[in-house]
Amino acid sequence: MNQISRNPTPLPAEELNRLHAFWRACNYLAAGMIYLQDNPLLRESLKPEHIKRRLLGHWGASPALAFAYTHLNRLIVQDDLNAIFLAGPGHGAPGVLAPVYLEGTYAEIYPNKGEDVEGLRLFFKEFSFPGGIGSHCTPETPGSIHEGGELGYSIAHAFGAAFDNPDLLVAVMVGDGEAETGPLATAWHSNKFLNPIRDGAVLPILNLNGYKINNPTLLARISHEELQQLFQGYGWTPHFVEGDDPMTLHQTMAATLEACVAEIRSIQRLARASGIPERPRWPMIVLRTPKGWTGPKQVDGHKVEGYWRAHQVPLARVREDPAHLQLLEDWLRSYRPEELFDANGRLVPELRALAPRGKRRMSANPHANGGLLRRALRLPDFRAYRVEVAAPGASEVENTQPLGEFLRDILRQNPDNFRVFGPDETTSNRLSAVYQASKKTWLADQLPEDADGGELAADGRVMEMLSEHTLEGWLEGYLLTGRHGFFSTYEAFVHVIDSMFNQHAKWLSIAEQIPWRAPVSSLNLLITSTVWRQDHNGFTHQDPGFLDLVVNKSPSVTRIYLPPDANCLLSVADHCLRSSNDVNVIVCDKQSHLQYLDMDAAIRHCTKGIGIWDWASNDQGSEPDVVLASCGDVPTQEALAAVCLLREHFPALKIRFVNVVDLYRLTPASEHPHGLSDRDFDSLFTLDKPIIFNFHGYPWLIHRLAYRRSNHRNLHVRGYKEKGNINTPLELAIRNEIDRFSLAIDVINRVPGLLVAGAHVKEKLRELQIECRNYAYAHGVDQPEQAGWTWPQAKH
Amino acid sequence: MNQISRNPTPLPAEELNRLHAFWRACNYLAAGMIYLQDNPLLRESLKPEHIKRRLLGHWGASPALAFAYTHLNRLIVQDDLNAIFLAGPGHGAPGVLAPVYLEGTYAEIYPNKGEDVEGLRLFFKEFSFPGGIGSHCTPETPGSIHEGGELGYSIAHAFGAAFDNPDLLVAVMVGDGEAETGPLATAWHSNKFLNPIRDGAVLPILNLNGYKINNPTLLARISHEELQQLFQGYGWTPHFVEGDDPMTLHQTMAATLEACVAEIRSIQRLARASGIPERPRWPMIVLRTPKGWTGPKQVDGHKVEGYWRAHQVPLARVREDPAHLQLLEDWLRSYRPEELFDANGRLVPELRALAPRGKRRMSANPHANGGLLRRALRLPDFRAYRVEVAAPGASEVENTQPLGEFLRDILRQNPDNFRVFGPDETTSNRLSAVYQASKKTWLADQLPEDADGGELAADGRVMEMLSEHTLEGWLEGYLLTGRHGFFSTYEAFVHVIDSMFNQHAKWLSIAEQIPWRAPVSSLNLLITSTVWRQDHNGFTHQDPGFLDLVVNKSPSVTRIYLPPDANCLLSVADHCLRSSNDVNVIVCDKQSHLQYLDMDAAIRHCTKGIGIWDWASNDQGSEPDVVLASCGDVPTQEALAAVCLLREHFPALKIRFVNVVDLYRLTPASEHPHGLSDRDFDSLFTLDKPIIFNFHGYPWLIHRLAYRRSNHRNLHVRGYKEKGNINTPLELAIRNEIDRFSLAIDVINRVPGLLVAGAHVKEKLRELQIECRNYAYAHGVDQPEQAGWTWPQAKH
Repeated sequence: MNQISRNPTPLPAEELNRLHAFWRACNYLAAGMIYLQDNPLLRESLKPEHIKRRLLGHWGASPALAFAYTHLNRLIVQDDLNAIFLAGPGHGAPGVLAPVYLEGTYAEIYPNKGEDVEGLRLFFKEFSFPGGIGSHCTPETPGSIHEGGELGYSIAHAFGAAFDNPDLLVAVMVGDGEAETGPLATAWHSNKFLNPIRDGAVLPILNLNGYKINNPTLLARISHEELQQLFQGYGWTPHFVEGDDPMTLHQTMAATLEACVAEIRSIQRLARASGIPERPRWPMIVLRTPKGWTGPKQVDGHKVEGYWRAHQVPLARVREDPAHLQLLEDWLRSYRPEELFDANGRLVPELRALAPRGKRRMSANPHANGGLLRRALRLPDFRAYRVEVAAPGASEVENTQPLGEFLRDILRQNPDNFRVFGPDETTSNRLSAVYQASKKTWLADQLPEDADGGELAADGRVMEMLSEHTLEGWLEGYLLTGRHGFFSTYEAFVHVIDSMFNQHAKWLSIAEQIPWRAPVSSLNLLITSTVWRQDHNGFTHQDPGFLDLVVNKSPSVTRIYLPPDANCLLSVADHCLRSSNDVNVIVCDKQSHLQYLDMDAAIRHCTKGIGIWDWASNDQGSEPDVVLASCGDVPTQEALAAVCLLREHFPALKIRFVNVVDLYRLTPASEHPHGLSDRDFDSLFTLDKPIIFNFHGYPWLIHRLAYRRSNHRNLHVRGYKEKGNINTPLELAIRNEIDRFSLAIDVINRVPGLLVAGAHVKEKLRELQIECRNYAYAHGVDQPEQAGWTWPQAKH
Repeated sequence: MNQISRNPTPLPAEELNRLHAFWRACNYLAAGMIYLQDNPLLRESLKPEHIKRRLLGHWGASPALAFAYTHLNRLIVQDDLNAIFLAGPGHGAPGVLAPVYLEGTYAEIYPNKGEDVEGLRLFFKEFSFPGGIGSHCTPETPGSIHEGGELGYSIAHAFGAAFDNPDLLVAVMVGDGEAETGPLATAWHSNKFLNPIRDGAVLPILNLNGYKINNPTLLARISHEELQQLFQGYGWTPHFVEGDDPMTLHQTMAATLEACVAEIRSIQRLARASGIPERPRWPMIVLRTPKGWTGPKQVDGHKVEGYWRAHQVPLARVREDPAHLQLLEDWLRSYRPEELFDANGRLVPELRALAPRGKRRMSANPHANGGLLRRALRLPDFRAYRVEVAAPGASEVENTQPLGEFLRDILRQNPDNFRVFGPDETTSNRLSAVYQASKKTWLADQLPEDADGGELAADGRVMEMLSEHTLEGWLEGYLLTGRHGFFSTYEAFVHVIDSMFNQHAKWLSIAEQIPWRAPVSSLNLLITSTVWRQDHNGFTHQDPGFLDLVVNKSPSVTRIYLPPDANCLLSVADHCLRSSNDVNVIVCDKQSHLQYLDMDAAIRHCTKGIGIWDWASNDQGSEPDVVLASCGDVPTQEALAAVCLLREHFPALKIRFVNVVDLYRLTPASEHPHGLSDRDFDSLFTLDKPIIFNFHGYPWLIHRLAYRRSNHRNLHVRGYKEKGNINTPLELAIRNEIDRFSLAIDVINRVPGLLVAGAHVKEKLRELQIECRNYAYAHGVDQPEQAGWTWPQAKH
């Protein structure tokens, strides 16, 4: 594949010197922003008062980041590349912010940090400073779609950015610390999902600087042979750039980058000319350079450059210790700032000329501010996928199946900016209609049997790999570069990406406050194969606790929906797919469930997000004796069945039935944009009547959301209580007391006056529970009359 | 290294036939337990009523699991190996339960599932049946320390089991689906942490059956060359066993297993004889066999054996479709059960003789019921590590530093059954005293500079790798095999292992109900580098939400402690290290913090878990006007400072100061074994006075725990509200309103009568907040008088 002849020293002396000078300027800035609050160009001798009082930031990874950035700039200019840059190494922002400032984007976006002495002073000072910017490539960083505060996701993000961007080159620096994480270790396999015809290219640059905070890194301490085998085994062609002499390494890096870009272009040209999207061996670079390269070699007798001691602040006591202050000054002056900046403090023109222009700058490439490029999703009318509901609670449908048809047609209408993601569970989650529009992306080997139900294709748009981490990372990268997506996953295992959700929600909540960041599509997460129908997969598959995590994040970016049936799910999904800058969490099971609302009713109900179901209530025009509320599919079925039991035994009891789709409706309007006013809440839930609330998840979440409501003291919540093993659906409900019998007993216990009259009913209900369990134990299935329960139309 | 000559066909014909017959019996059982509720030995023709009504379980991975198990049994007998078996492939329990039953352990532990026809019938019926056992290797499975309900952790668990068990061979089957997960992908690097002198061996058997639920697997669809390079790159020597003809593969597998065991023994012998613990290339096996091997080849015209359709139940409509019923009968009879079982339904003697005896059976090996082997940890007196506290709130100490010394001496006193775990953060977390006792385990390459602060050694007992997943997996494996450990990690990134925590807590909560499972040591998790001192690392590093997840799990296995200072941390750690079958979560920051309690007071306080701090209260002998409560180090400091502000301005105000160490004290005794009685709670928090509660985490958790308490309506909680960026510590507190000024204002707002009198004080406090922020923005550090705040002794 790689037939490109490589000139080992492609840089003429003059270009080499200029390139090196640009990099010196980067390193000067990276060090400066860690230390200096004044005297930014060392136009006087360094004094303690020029030094920040609190030294924060991380020097270690910065020089190599700036090195790669500088060399990429050269290629961008030379080959008119359309490229963006992702910085994986932790706390590496100085190495990125430096070239971003030098190529002028920073001053354009933040005019007070202009390209002059005062601008530079402020730029230095605000770094890792209260009210300033962080030491990662935060949303405030022009050109960043990858903050890297939590390590592990750089490669997956890079691939997400490259999908469906055939002309884009996504350069991604991977730290050798980050490379030890699980998510990163499997993300290398993303190359089996990249189509050289349709997608752009990802160029990983693994920086073996050898050290983490206090430890060597594994990949830097195995043999060259093992390292090479590892990446060849992952399917890459590794190119090695190794050394510590800058002038030599500039030549090697320039030659290697040229070769890699040539290789990438050759791969793409070949595939695009032939139309045959075979999986190529993409090139990658292993850049082995000293940690804290060009920084102090030794401090207080300890090795610093090329050791873990270079990780953070190499000289810590500069304000206090004149010797350290002198070392710092020597170090800073070693970059010869007087040659790099003009009298006004601007980078000298011949270095300024090295950077690309306008949108070709990686810091100004619109792909890294994806909202700028985002086209609205073309959505068919979701009503067309409705299931017929002749009467509430009379028929069953697999709730997610119609959604699959909706997604299928979205795939068809958006052939280049929408993908569906799922960890080997798209079919299991009943979304397989999507394959009618598009297969699963697959660039690995195929076999003849794949023709029968394999659904594999190099140009597929359904992304499946058994790594929730990789999928979530791809999706985030895809969204942040301006596209749309939909991710479905098993409820219990969404916890695998808890931390990724946390980080993405944090990114969004900052990004939406940054005026120049255009809104990106929401991250749509369907949580299915839920706890109540993991009766057969057992205890390990039962965990509805993701929502407890979601509500900890900013209300401005979190949304939670629990549609009770298929039409509601369609309505909710349509809403979510139109939204931006949110994480939409939709909880809805895939199994066959009762249907309640026809499409018109579903739209009305989902638009309100919460409402009384008149057909299930008998308190019309008056105050009820009790409110039965439900949220989630199975809890709704059981709550309705409880209503039937209660009506049978207590025909005079006035029951109001409330269903919740939009979970945040429960919280006050002051705490979440979807919150109901207290007045509306009270009108639904009364001021003083007992509320029996049947919830999908762990019960406490409802208390948390409704905690400030007037009638909170009468709110009794049922939900999952961590009781499960191999069960039937009804038995699992009974064990956790969300079943019809338990709920009816709850009502008898809570409604004044019912307790005495209802004693025999309670006893009967308890007997029914035992009967159900015994039946399940004997037959392995639920009693047919209970399993086949429907809402008795005759009764209303 | 591998100089062992390999006989390619080591099995004489008779042994081959016997081995194959044992495997046939396994496969028969694996299929039988999925389908049959009666007629277990097919002594009559199969009828619909013999078939379970609900067909659950997973056939696909089972035959290969049983294949490996059977061949391992042969080697155990032949070489008297001490081995255990971990089954990674999802839902693979039938392939493990089958040999476990056949070697007699099952009947010993569960006498009603005896080795006769009725026992077999019950064994079949209970599988994936309500009230029965699950389709993973749950705690109920003899010989299991790895349930595998959530995929990704088999290799890490296996290494955890092998550490410090020099004679143990841990065989671990890895599914090729599981191999796609991030945690598994990086866990292969565990071989850089295994010492051939001191530790046992891990023999991974990667089963390339080619498919997941509905997809091919990546590793089965890359070239042989790439696969080989990948595992060589990971540092292993892969041995390939590939094919679908059982009789051929028995020979290959027997020869390969012999070679691997010989290689392992040779490696160990060499290292142990020389005393030089170099990192060897350990052998591993790649077993490429058809999914659902020996099952139906085709069903309804679709390929099943060797395709993803074999994943779960190959024939689904056996009760309804006579043709399917016949296919099932043909399939089951293909194993010739009449040759395998005697008249009573017991495995025939010549096959029974193949299994190892007694504790050599992998299902009865005490290492897999680690509590049996567990020796109590030898603990030095933790009081010896105390910090001197001359007066409360007068001096500062890095809270975790004395704990490091305690851990150091525990390492010294327990040189073969205690390890310390941390993701490259042990030094950062101020626990570096441990290196005085033991270095970091490191079998990868070393460099001369490591001598200066590298702290690396092949016989180190401090485990550091930048993968929380791998560390958690190692620790779990280490604990479940009867040892002890301590894990420290950054608070925000403990979310990386949310799902692993969930699964381990589920395992423990089931295991503790199983009489034959001996208690194992608790999983001790120190969460440090906490939110309130991630002011400088920024928003991505601020997330105290792990506790919200912990409280969802069973109260019988979850414990949460937030010691406010170093002596309390020592006392809590001592308690946790003595406990069993729990997950102990300790939250305590590493930075320099005020110290409050001398050791005697700390012990008293931690033993109670919650208590009034008399020295900070002025309500002695009377009802207070307000209760100020705190939980966590920084919140406690701020709450105490608020007390000072209040006393200064309102000397007559009676303040009670309550500190919480044991978080579950807040919950009712009926909900958690550590819960306070309502009476005790009321006596601390009063029945009607305002409570201002300053909490470490997200505030809602306190409401959740205290929700049923009498005075809950007057409880006002402050905590992290997701407001943070680059801040100073005090500024971060102010932004989230847990600071002294906000708390004092809260009190003024809540205590009847104070509002009017305190209006000017409120104004002054707000001015102070602004002054603090302005100072931080100007100087980058907190105002010295605020940052250096101490409890004014003179005032009480």
